[in-house]
Amino acid sequence: MISLGGNALLRAGQKGTFPEQVENIQRTCENLIPLLKQGYHIVIGHGNGPQVGNGLLRHQAGECQYGLPAQPLDFCGAETQGAIAYLIETDLDRVMAAHGIDRRVVSLFTRVEVRADDPGFQNPTKPIGPFYPEKPAAEGTFREDPKGRGWRRVVASPVPVAIQNVDLVGRLAREGYIVVTVGGGGIPVVRDGQCPAGPGGKVALKGVEAVIDKDLASALCAHAIGADEFYILTDVPKVYINFRREDEKALDTLTVAEARRYLAEGQFAEGSMAPKVRAGIYFIEKGGKQCIITEAGELGNPSCGTRITQ
Amino acid sequence: MISLGGNALLRAGQKGTFPEQVENIQRTCENLIPLLKQGYHIVIGHGNGPQVGNGLLRHQAGECQYGLPAQPLDFCGAETQGAIAYLIETDLDRVMAAHGIDRRVVSLFTRVEVRADDPGFQNPTKPIGPFYPEKPAAEGTFREDPKGRGWRRVVASPVPVAIQNVDLVGRLAREGYIVVTVGGGGIPVVRDGQCPAGPGGKVALKGVEAVIDKDLASALCAHAIGADEFYILTDVPKVYINFRREDEKALDTLTVAEARRYLAEGQFAEGSMAPKVRAGIYFIEKGGKQCIITEAGELGNPSCGTRITQ
Repeated sequence: MISLGGNALLRAGQKGTFPEQVENIQRTCENLIPLLKQGYHIVIGHGNGPQVGNGLLRHQAGECQYGLPAQPLDFCGAETQGAIAYLIETDLDRVMAAHGIDRRVVSLFTRVEVRADDPGFQNPTKPIGPFYPEKPAAEGTFREDPKGRGWRRVVASPVPVAIQNVDLVGRLAREGYIVVTVGGGGIPVVRDGQCPAGPGGKVALKGVEAVIDKDLASALCAHAIGADEFYILTDVPKVYINFRREDEKALDTLTVAEARRYLAEGQFAEGSMAPKVRAGIYFIEKGGKQCIITEAGELGNPSCGTRITQ
Repeated sequence: MISLGGNALLRAGQKGTFPEQVENIQRTCENLIPLLKQGYHIVIGHGNGPQVGNGLLRHQAGECQYGLPAQPLDFCGAETQGAIAYLIETDLDRVMAAHGIDRRVVSLFTRVEVRADDPGFQNPTKPIGPFYPEKPAAEGTFREDPKGRGWRRVVASPVPVAIQNVDLVGRLAREGYIVVTVGGGGIPVVRDGQCPAGPGGKVALKGVEAVIDKDLASALCAHAIGADEFYILTDVPKVYINFRREDEKALDTLTVAEARRYLAEGQFAEGSMAPKVRAGIYFIEKGGKQCIITEAGELGNPSCGTRITQ
C-alpha cells in the first residue's frame, strides 16, 4: 500500500497547470518503477488537499459569475477522485509502457465510513476552501485565520472506520492490478439515522462535509487488504527528530513505543509528519509488518526511509 | 447494460443544486428496483453533458476570479465521473436498503480509446462550455451560435473503439456487483504516436479534448461484456415516428432495417433520438439480443419502450 502525498501532484510554488500536474505525476510514477520491477502488488491511495481547495474556489467562482449552485465538499472531493485517478492511470500507463511493464491500472471510486458521533464533528479543526474578509453568514463553522488572511471554513477530520469495496481492492491487487483507491482519504459517509436499515439489514449511508486524513485512510486500507508493507511518500527522505535544529537526526527505524514517545514530546509537526507517524503506528498495531515513511525518489532502495516496526 | 440520460441527474429548468441532483438520482435509482428484484446483473453508463458544461464554466470562473489554471475538457470530464459515481453509489445504496436488496455498487473510473484519425477530429461539431461575445483567440475551434448567443467551442465526438478494463466490468457484473462505468461516455484517449510502444508492447495513451457519445460508449460496453439487453433511458416512453405531428406514432418494435430507413428519412432528431437509435443498431449488429429505448419509470414493465431487434 502506497500513500501519495499532495506534492506528488502539485509542488510548492506551482499554480497547477495541466502540464505541471502531468509532469509531477509522471515523476511520481517513474519512482514506482523499482517496486513494479520487483513484482510488488500495489495499491495507491492519494491526497487531494490542494485540488479540493481549488475545487471549492471554482465552485464559489462559478456561483458568483454564472449562478451555478456551488456543491458541497463531499461532491468536490468526489470530483478530485475522478480527476486524480485519470492523471494517475494515464501517466502510470505511459511510464510502464516506456519500461516494458505490462500491468494494468484500475481506479475505484471510494467512499469511506466514519462515525456520526466521531468527536471531530464537535470540534472541527481542518481549514478548507477560500478565505472570506468577514465571518460568512453561511452554515458551517468558520474561524479567523491566525495569519490575518480572513475567515475560513473549518471541517471535521473524522477517523475512518470502513472502506467501501475494500475486499475488492485487495483481490484485484493480488491479481496484479495496480489499484487506485481512497482518493483524498475517501469520500466520508456516515450511517444515516434518519433512514433505518431496510428489510435486508443493508444500512444507508450519507455523505458528510469532512476531510479524512489520507494517510490514516491508506493505513486502514493497508490493514484491511493485509498489505505486508505500507509506504507513506512525502517530501523528505526520512523522519527526523529535532527537525531543523542543530542536533537534527534522521531515523532509520522507529518502534511503535519510540514513535509514541516522540509524538508525546511534540517532535513531529501536526498537519505534517505527526499524522503520518500516527498512520504508521495504526498499521503496525493492527498487525502490519513495516511502515516506511520516505520520499518517492528513494523507493526500491532497500535502506530507504524510516521504518516503523513493532 | 443501462445508459442513463442527462435528465437522470439534472432536469430541464433546474439549476442543479445538490438536493435537486440527489432527488433526481434517487428517483432514477427507484426505477431500477424492478430489474434488481428480478435479479438482473446491471452495468450503468451515464451522460455528463450539463455537468461537464458546468465544470468548464467553473474552471473558467476560477481562472478569472482566483487565477486558478483552467484544466482541459478531459480533466473536467474525469471530475464528473467521480462526482456522478458518488451520487449514484450513495443514492442507489439508500434505495436498495429501503427495498431490502443486498447488492453492492462499484464504480470504475473509465478511459475509452478513440482513433487519433477519427474523421470527427477534422470536423468538430459538438458545442461545449461557455458562450463568448467574440471569437476567442484561444486554441481550438469556435463556431458562432446559430441562436445568436455568441461564440462557442466545438469539439469532436469520435467513435469509441475500446473501453479500458471492460473485461473487469463484465466479470464484476456477473458476480452481482452493480457496476458504474463509461461515465460521460468515458474519458477519450488516443494512442500516442509521440510515445512508441515500450519493450513489452504496451501502448501509451493520451487524453484528448473530445466528447464520446454516452449511448455509443454504453453500446460498445454492452457488446464487450456480452450483455443480453441494452437499455437506453430517456425522457420519452417510446421512440416515435412523425414525432409531434398529427400522425405521430409510438413504435413497440423496430428492426435494424426499419431503424436505418427511419434514420435516413430524418425521423429522429440529431443530438436527441438519432444517436440513441444508432447506438441500438450498433449493439444489435454486434450480436446483442435487444435494445430497449424507454423512460426510467417504465423499467420492469415487460412491454415497455421500443425494442430494437435484428
